[in-house]
Amino acid sequence: MQNARSMWSERLADVLTVYVLTDRGLSGGLSEQDVVRHAIDGGATAIQLRWKDAPMREAVSIARELKSICAERDVLFVINDRIDLAMAIEADAVHLGEDDLPIPEARKLIGDSMILGYSPADLDEVEWAFEAGADYLGVGPVYGTSSKDDAGEAVGIERMREVRRLTDRPFVGIGGIHAGNAAPVIEAGADGVAVISSVVAQADIESAARSLRLVVDDALSRTRS
Amino acid sequence: MQNARSMWSERLADVLTVYVLTDRGLSGGLSEQDVVRHAIDGGATAIQLRWKDAPMREAVSIARELKSICAERDVLFVINDRIDLAMAIEADAVHLGEDDLPIPEARKLIGDSMILGYSPADLDEVEWAFEAGADYLGVGPVYGTSSKDDAGEAVGIERMREVRRLTDRPFVGIGGIHAGNAAPVIEAGADGVAVISSVVAQADIESAARSLRLVVDDALSRTRS
Repeated sequence: MQNARSMWSERLADVLTVYVLTDRGLSGGLSEQDVVRHAIDGGATAIQLRWKDAPMREAVSIARELKSICAERDVLFVINDRIDLAMAIEADAVHLGEDDLPIPEARKLIGDSMILGYSPADLDEVEWAFEAGADYLGVGPVYGTSSKDDAGEAVGIERMREVRRLTDRPFVGIGGIHAGNAAPVIEAGADGVAVISSVVAQADIESAARSLRLVVDDALSRTRS
Repeated sequence: MQNARSMWSERLADVLTVYVLTDRGLSGGLSEQDVVRHAIDGGATAIQLRWKDAPMREAVSIARELKSICAERDVLFVINDRIDLAMAIEADAVHLGEDDLPIPEARKLIGDSMILGYSPADLDEVEWAFEAGADYLGVGPVYGTSSKDDAGEAVGIERMREVRRLTDRPFVGIGGIHAGNAAPVIEAGADGVAVISSVVAQADIESAARSLRLVVDDALSRTRS
């Protein structure tokens, strides 16, 4: 496998700007492929296939198509949880949580073949995660969320500042974020926002992604200047 | 990784004789480790960790212990479904079904580092599965079963004969098998029996495994003579 890790890692913070997670149940019968095309048309910079109960046979085929759609548009393609699926289709990245295969074991399996994202359980895991082999973090839930039933209590904007004080490595805020509340997440130090409902559950996915991108880019230009 | 595939494959039919699948929900609070120790004491020759909803962090730790317990007793240790977990702990084998990662992709990931088992959806898949990289098959459900809610309708003893006519490679019957109905499965051509409830849900797991082993060994000695 190619060293996709080094290829992406130089500009990882930039490709995490608007990070859209798929959710079949929320997309009203639209295929993952259509959801992802619309999201990218609107300005999504990273796509995560999140589909825990997928029959793997179907997931492999859909993941391959999504990878190709993302590759054409220079969008980071991430597989949630299943390292075997990510390796089989040579995804750009795999994203793990505290209940998934631990980072050291995961990094050993994937080598430098892909980016590894991690959702730390708490602040204590932030520095450890990067040392153990993570390339970026997903931190949340920033606001309350209904899309992930295992997301836990909201950690708030303050958590973004705390994480930024601990590391200069890339991280995104996740949880209940939409165009109306995304700017404070970026202003508090996140490199991007990860969203589900506020893009994939909208009637006009492209427009929802575009509004989010506009707000996030604006906040980034102000905080980084 | 060692070439565990060639190490086991020469005597694979023999180690598939009494193949016990774990099931946390059926084992009345007993740990997987205790279930497996008792089953092996009774004569189990292969153990499969089947625990689809396991938090992987916990699964890694339990799987490592089970691997060590099995290795001490020269018992084949199989991980169900999760190729990433199997690779992370260097299991002896991984077992896949029709909804899991397809055999060619799976074999590409694991190379010759482990045995690959497969549950074919129907007879048409038997020869293809071995050509695609499977080392043994699990065929069933032989009888009705309540342990696996996705098991489908019973295929009956005749299916064992049909599979044996198609291949001389190893396969086990699975589904509703216990000491009282195991002999016909072997007599019809299976190399062994895979069981869940009839061992792991019994008050005396060791004794249940011993009875099954006795019956299967007796049937094997009659059919192979």
